Amino acid sequence: MHPMDLKFAIEKGIPFAGRTEVKVLELEPGYVKMMMPLEPNINHVGTMYAGALFTLAELPGGAIFLSTFDASKFFPLIKGMEIKFLKPATTDIVVEVRLSPEEAAKIQDEANTHGKADYDWDCELKDANGQVVAVSSNRYQLRQTKPTGA
Amino acid sequence: MHPMDLKFAIEKGIPFAGRTEVKVLELEPGYVKMMMPLEPNINHVGTMYAGALFTLAELPGGAIFLSTFDASKFFPLIKGMEIKFLKPATTDIVVEVRLSPEEAAKIQDEANTHGKADYDWDCELKDANGQVVAVSSNRYQLRQTKPTGA
Repeated sequence: MHPMDLKFAIEKGIPFAGRTEVKVLELEPGYVKMMMPLEPNINHVGTMYAGALFTLAELPGGAIFLSTFDASKFFPLIKGMEIKFLKPATTDIVVEVRLSPEEAAKIQDEANTHGKADYDWDCELKDANGQVVAVSSNRYQLRQTKPTGA
Repeated sequence: MHPMDLKFAIEKGIPFAGRTEVKVLELEPGYVKMMMPLEPNINHVGTMYAGALFTLAELPGGAIFLSTFDASKFFPLIKGMEIKFLKPATTDIVVEVRLSPEEAAKIQDEANTHGKADYDWDCELKDANGQVVAVSSNRYQLRQTKPTGA
């Protein structure tokens, strides 16, 4: 997919995500930087609603999948997430996720061999001052579209 | 607040939640039942997006607060949540949360004495066939608006 199409797919492919007006700031194999704007996601006390923070922590899963893995052979599932809210989020919020080429190759090799491979990462959500407002631990699974032998 | 105003506050008070078209099905002190509709929250593979399931698991925190605690003296914070996605959510999804009067009194007493009180609960998200599609453990904190002695 063309990089601009990829960006559009991540920002708007899921209507729920599109309504948050989340933006992909940078995207390359093994790396994504995304931003959740405060204004459309403000809660009743003027900070970012927890569900928007969760969404910002979750969407890199799809972004890294699309930029890094072979989308013709695999699809990703989210298995679980633990999120801790540390400070009120009072600005736009940014997340960055990196997955090394070695780690990505290992995950794809395992999914090729076994039909699926679990992987996980931790991420930090930061405000405009660089303060960490939330941290998450994300658990995903890469699955073969057509498992070996099927 | 009048029960209909309460229902409106929970469904529409946070624009992010309003956009999901989540519904309060039942609400009384210590009890809430809510429903997240599939259609506005569908993902690219036709199941409910993880962020909508998170939101359905989280909103009872505000609903139980408004129906159960003294909103003139206290406000709630979400401290964290762990959510596990067990099955694809292919229908509207329902959650129920109960907090006993004894437990609610204990939490309010502690917040009255210490200015804050942590509390938590587990919940199950169920599809139209009664299947559990996700489970969550939610951690909240009740805080005094004006702490004792302030």
